[in-house]
Amino acid sequence: MNDETRTRTALLGSSSDAATRVFTTILTRSPISRIDVARLTGLSQAAVTKAVTPLVAAGLLNDSLDPTLTGLPGRPVSPVAVVPDAVVALGVKVNADEIIGVATDLTTRIITSDRLRLTSHDPAAVIDAIVEICGRLRSGLGGLRSRLACIGVAVSGDVDMESGVVRDSALMDWRGVELGDALAERLGQRIVVENDVRALTIGEHWFGVGLGTSSFAIVTIGRGIGSGLHLNGEVVEGAYGVAGEIGHLPLTSPDRICACGRRGCVEAVAATAAIVATVSAGLGREVSIEEAVELARDGDPVAAQAFAEAGTVIGAAIASLVNMVGPELVIIGGEGVVNFDLIEEPLRRSYAEHVFASADRCRIVVRPHTFEDWARGAAATAIRSLVV
Amino acid sequence: MNDETRTRTALLGSSSDAATRVFTTILTRSPISRIDVARLTGLSQAAVTKAVTPLVAAGLLNDSLDPTLTGLPGRPVSPVAVVPDAVVALGVKVNADEIIGVATDLTTRIITSDRLRLTSHDPAAVIDAIVEICGRLRSGLGGLRSRLACIGVAVSGDVDMESGVVRDSALMDWRGVELGDALAERLGQRIVVENDVRALTIGEHWFGVGLGTSSFAIVTIGRGIGSGLHLNGEVVEGAYGVAGEIGHLPLTSPDRICACGRRGCVEAVAATAAIVATVSAGLGREVSIEEAVELARDGDPVAAQAFAEAGTVIGAAIASLVNMVGPELVIIGGEGVVNFDLIEEPLRRSYAEHVFASADRCRIVVRPHTFEDWARGAAATAIRSLVV
Ligand SMILES: [Zn+2]
Ligand SMILES: [Zn+2]
Repeated sequence: MNDETRTRTALLGSSSDAATRVFTTILTRSPISRIDVARLTGLSQAAVTKAVTPLVAAGLLNDSLDPTLTGLPGRPVSPVAVVPDAVVALGVKVNADEIIGVATDLTTRIITSDRLRLTSHDPAAVIDAIVEICGRLRSGLGGLRSRLACIGVAVSGDVDMESGVVRDSALMDWRGVELGDALAERLGQRIVVENDVRALTIGEHWFGVGLGTSSFAIVTIGRGIGSGLHLNGEVVEGAYGVAGEIGHLPLTSPDRICACGRRGCVEAVAATAAIVATVSAGLGREVSIEEAVELARDGDPVAAQAFAEAGTVIGAAIASLVNMVGPELVIIGGEGVVNFDLIEEPLRRSYAEHVFASADRCRIVVRPHTFEDWARGAAATAIRSLVV
Repeated sequence: MNDETRTRTALLGSSSDAATRVFTTILTRSPISRIDVARLTGLSQAAVTKAVTPLVAAGLLNDSLDPTLTGLPGRPVSPVAVVPDAVVALGVKVNADEIIGVATDLTTRIITSDRLRLTSHDPAAVIDAIVEICGRLRSGLGGLRSRLACIGVAVSGDVDMESGVVRDSALMDWRGVELGDALAERLGQRIVVENDVRALTIGEHWFGVGLGTSSFAIVTIGRGIGSGLHLNGEVVEGAYGVAGEIGHLPLTSPDRICACGRRGCVEAVAATAAIVATVSAGLGREVSIEEAVELARDGDPVAAQAFAEAGTVIGAAIASLVNMVGPELVIIGGEGVVNFDLIEEPLRRSYAEHVFASADRCRIVVRPHTFEDWARGAAATAIRSLVV
């Protein structure tokens, strides 16, 4: 980080509440007129100008735009825009078998990306791999390297963002891994560790389909079933780092034992491993998820039934989420959406059966996130930590 | 409302975001030193003084306190306190068989209260009864009558606070009742209609055990099973007015049909009517809830089992809530808590079986709310509507 970048991050971190709201409004809606910033933040135009001035001086915002070139309708008065590459972030998503990294600008536009296969879940090995991919991404930044201000790392499970500790990750078989401290020491950078679904939620809120909604949820399906909640304009972190755990709601029979050890969890029926186990048991031989998908598409009743059952319980889980927190929008994502055709009909039927009263006006959309999208969510989390 | 009261409510309604935070901080923690107000709001002391000055001038705050008499530790600099009876509110809780009303000061201290039996659920009859009880409460206010600024009404079900419409209340058998408009016309006062559990949540947050926690939930048991959520410092209203509906999570067998028509709902096993139905069916004769309680306390296995089953499904519902939103604290209330001894052990066991990872650090407390407490929640909702 050079002095210029240091000045910029210090300015963002020390901003008043009003300045923070002004900056995030411009960041997520850039370019935008000052009048609209005032309207969206509820501040006076004088207060907006007061907040904008030091951000322009530091090179984070640009207020010398040609109004005819901003793409805004009409001729907006005093448009202002974020300077996207004023600050650069890295985002890393840790998967079971590989890590995916992206370098992004302030708006989470991807500058460069990379992947690295993981051969071990040993924390030391994973930390080495994260350090390795961050080094490669940094090299890929070229002249922007000195603007790198923060690194976000997204991990499945119970993550304490404050301390950077992964308290419990079933996917990685980790308990109490002090990932944030270890990476800060190795990389000499500001590190933010976050639950992966919440990171994706932050990314969708600031730069994705969640923008402009005051409440939405992301439900991820596949290896795990999870959710990220965004209510009253903020991510729900959980007082103790746990929130959105719809994969472990007891919505199915107690005969079904979950990988977490509890009975009747959604994941005990609907996680990829559970579907594979059900199809394998039904056919009397081990099948892979790819084969299970193929069998179900070809009309094999055992495989089709396993997916239908998964769809039914996921539908009940989404209805439970909607009945509980009443979002405007639910985005279904995760690697499992590639087989959404196999679960959609029972999912929607079971959702409709259990959703309560006018909560049913909630929109449900399916969005296939790539792993780069998840890594972008980690970068968005890091950028957000600079600002709020 | 006299001119003085009109000035006060106009000032509260037009306040800047900073002034609102200053006022609510003083309102809920009065008396408090300006230094603590600045610390809790994150504002400068100058900004606190700027916000306090017009509120003192309007008679809403008092900054001429004798520092030795405030009960604050040490000798606080410039203590400031709310003037409790600067503004008065009414709160009305609509039950199936009666309405309970309270008149309170700004801090929801009860000045006078009253009850009125309901003989019909016809909206016109209930509106008449609310008008009647408000008239009586107003009379009971004596000299404070001219300070009445707002009336809050709490109703079970799907309530749209914005429009004052009760969209769907199973308890009252109402659909689309324009309660807010009807009452505003009859009473000539600002009316706020809110879901009853959310009203109780607002009351607990501002003036009850929820004060100082950033996230908590109230779970009510009894005739209905519901919850109110308070996350990131705000009540979760639901984008379409529905939130906290844990009574209709599909956590039990699909054989159990709920009064709402859905299958497998928590209420289908754990609501008072469901317990009564189970015990009556098991014994082959109609029993009342009082008799069911007595039988269970005397060790009758059918009755004891019905309560145990209710406890088990309520425990699973609370675990689901905690896994989903991760609160610091869950307060169990509602008229059903008088029989909590019959459900506590299975409730806690089932909760422990399903709560996920460090979410189990959430505290669970039982608090017997009176109906006057619910009506106070309605008054708190009305007072909050003046301020935020
Ligand atoms: Zn589980
Ligand atoms: Zn129901």
